[in-house]
Amino acid sequence: MKIDLQPGERLDDLNRNGYKIIQNSGKFCFGMDAVLLSGFVLVKPGEKVLDLGTGTGIIPILLEAKTEGRHFTGLEIQKDSADMASRSVEYNNLQHKVEIVTGDIKEASRIFGRASFDVVTSNPPYMKSNHGLKNPDEPKAIARHELLCSLEDLVREASALLRPGGRFYMVHRPQRLIEIITALTKHGLEPKRMKMVHPFADREANMVLIEAVKGGRPMLKVEKPLIVYRAPGEYMQEIYSIYGY
Amino acid sequence: MKIDLQPGERLDDLNRNGYKIIQNSGKFCFGMDAVLLSGFVLVKPGEKVLDLGTGTGIIPILLEAKTEGRHFTGLEIQKDSADMASRSVEYNNLQHKVEIVTGDIKEASRIFGRASFDVVTSNPPYMKSNHGLKNPDEPKAIARHELLCSLEDLVREASALLRPGGRFYMVHRPQRLIEIITALTKHGLEPKRMKMVHPFADREANMVLIEAVKGGRPMLKVEKPLIVYRAPGEYMQEIYSIYGY
Repeated sequence: MKIDLQPGERLDDLNRNGYKIIQNSGKFCFGMDAVLLSGFVLVKPGEKVLDLGTGTGIIPILLEAKTEGRHFTGLEIQKDSADMASRSVEYNNLQHKVEIVTGDIKEASRIFGRASFDVVTSNPPYMKSNHGLKNPDEPKAIARHELLCSLEDLVREASALLRPGGRFYMVHRPQRLIEIITALTKHGLEPKRMKMVHPFADREANMVLIEAVKGGRPMLKVEKPLIVYRAPGEYMQEIYSIYGY
Repeated sequence: MKIDLQPGERLDDLNRNGYKIIQNSGKFCFGMDAVLLSGFVLVKPGEKVLDLGTGTGIIPILLEAKTEGRHFTGLEIQKDSADMASRSVEYNNLQHKVEIVTGDIKEASRIFGRASFDVVTSNPPYMKSNHGLKNPDEPKAIARHELLCSLEDLVREASALLRPGGRFYMVHRPQRLIEIITALTKHGLEPKRMKMVHPFADREANMVLIEAVKGGRPMLKVEKPLIVYRAPGEYMQEIYSIYGY
């Protein structure tokens, strides 16, 4: 299939169904976080999924490949990223299953309607506002820092968008776990599954994966930890599996 | 040293400073939980420590052996357990450093005064009220179920007992982690360090160790997980180290 790549863009293989994704390393490329989140998320056959802050569309495209969900929407505020994501959807011929919408997470429940999804996912900016930022207008800054959307905004909208019993999945930094749990419970999302990601078996966690259920009853399961590297440069088998190698 | 053991009691070696502890398997024996908590707790030289619900006194006795704390108090509501704990303190000649007090956790800040400790520890009952209980008067039931003291009571008292900047350490079940975090933050105890304990590397966590700082600022560290068994019946080296072998 022919594809129009803009200057700076490249086409990367996703190792799933032959899918590829357009990225621009000058703007933002997806990280291991998004891939691990897509491995943690459960989508049941026929479910409708929304990804908040989808960037290049990596999460809806991977979830379409891995699950039997009915439909996948990605919401992205940055026009260039949304445009890349839309062209990736077209390249993979997924227009009937995956839709990319340009818009603001803070408006998401108004854009899509309340209680309109079974599953909401997000790999949000990890860092507070403009902490240590030189160029707050850069695409990378907007993807990494809470410049346009706070954790509180994200959780509030996720809760509003989910049907009762619907599931919210997020990857974030363990440093902010207490704030995350406080926001989730405040908005009626009960954390039910959690998985810590450690770069090595003897190092502290640097990512946390969370599943929260709208209106769920309290009872958390902390899954076996995910260890990324067996040795420097050498992934654990579980990581290769999640990546589809 | 001579010792008066009551019927059903036995004297167990703690592998620390030659210390021994009196236990009664018909009533309650300390578990790995208490030992792992004592390995997780940090007590700085000169600090004053209180253990809430001390049972046989295992935590204050182990912390006296492992740290340079100035003084250790154990509070226990069950007279028989408190009596065993007191006799263990005497057997080990620790009367100048360790005191066992018979009393109710719910009254602890009235008994000892507010802001009177640097460190508070607890290995509390894990199970809600009388969930599935046949004999709620048994010593084991009181030690395992929240019959006399709820999680909320415990956290409220711990917070009142700590000086600003003081530290609260607890071991509990991950299933109740959300409720624990909610109670801690409600009472001004900010979780700062957390460690998951997994029976095997590929199994979900069955214990969680938490450090919370009174008035601390939000920033959690999730330490490397503690794996208990390398193979069935064979502890990991870290477990042997914590036990002092």
